[in-house]
Amino acid sequence: MLREPVSRLDSFIRRLEAQRACLEMAAELVGGLDGDVLELGLGNGRTYDHLRNLFPDRKVYVCERTIAAHPDCIPPAGLLFLGDMRETLPMARPRLSDRVALAHLDAGNGDTPAGKALAECLTPLIIPLLRLDGVLVSEPAVAADALSPLPLPPGIEAGRYNLYRRVNHQPLP
Amino acid sequence: MLREPVSRLDSFIRRLEAQRACLEMAAELVGGLDGDVLELGLGNGRTYDHLRNLFPDRKVYVCERTIAAHPDCIPPAGLLFLGDMRETLPMARPRLSDRVALAHLDAGNGDTPAGKALAECLTPLIIPLLRLDGVLVSEPAVAADALSPLPLPPGIEAGRYNLYRRVNHQPLP
Repeated sequence: MLREPVSRLDSFIRRLEAQRACLEMAAELVGGLDGDVLELGLGNGRTYDHLRNLFPDRKVYVCERTIAAHPDCIPPAGLLFLGDMRETLPMARPRLSDRVALAHLDAGNGDTPAGKALAECLTPLIIPLLRLDGVLVSEPAVAADALSPLPLPPGIEAGRYNLYRRVNHQPLP
Repeated sequence: MLREPVSRLDSFIRRLEAQRACLEMAAELVGGLDGDVLELGLGNGRTYDHLRNLFPDRKVYVCERTIAAHPDCIPPAGLLFLGDMRETLPMARPRLSDRVALAHLDAGNGDTPAGKALAECLTPLIIPLLRLDGVLVSEPAVAADALSPLPLPPGIEAGRYNLYRRVNHQPLP
């Protein structure tokens, strides 16, 4: 039988499966690291709910512009940075600098120019919050000297979702 | 290792996988039947795109109130019934009565009271369009004498998505 072409439904399911597999691998990778969890963008709250389940004993902070999530998936006010992330991420430094063990950035339509531009803008603001050896899970792909790409979970196609380790980058002398 | 509780991300992935599996099983079930395909609700166009792929040689009609789909997933004007489905389904009868081999009803948040109420309201308007032995794929579950529940694809939990065969219902004398 001829295989049908890949539909948008197929692509969407693959992206969600990749997202979930990467979050779960990241949770294992940071299992031995102290630190908080940071969700960048709450959206409908689905991945926040998943992170809460993966990390019942850690604080899961959330950055979001305006809350539009399912009522069950709204973080406590004390763990919420409400507003434009370009402003709230710098404001989060006193609380979170070098304290985040796992950050998740889902720039919405990550594969679009707008999603990529947002991720490029936010990455330098996320890095100071990550502790050494902390993990960033991201769509789209991002690039920074302090981020070292990690292998993806088995079965996940390169680029569909992305995992990075925060490394100790020493600027060249 | 203890299994984490089911998150909203888990549930959403399961629902989409069930939706896709049911659409594909329905496509096989109607393989030997002439007739058109009817998508009730376009949304972002993901399942419409999947149906187009599954049925390259059939007309895929779409009912939708207002178009908000991805530009690649907007049906040709001649296959679109634009407006409130409670009005457009009766208007579609001259063209589609007893001609639809597969209909798909995704009442959005099908498991909510609003989704169930919408599906209950639409079901009697969908049935006259289905040809005998045609298949309705639906979330939420619906009930009608002219619809006989079909077994779900392997691995799909009962009630997560639903399949029905249009049967020849003779009212009691």
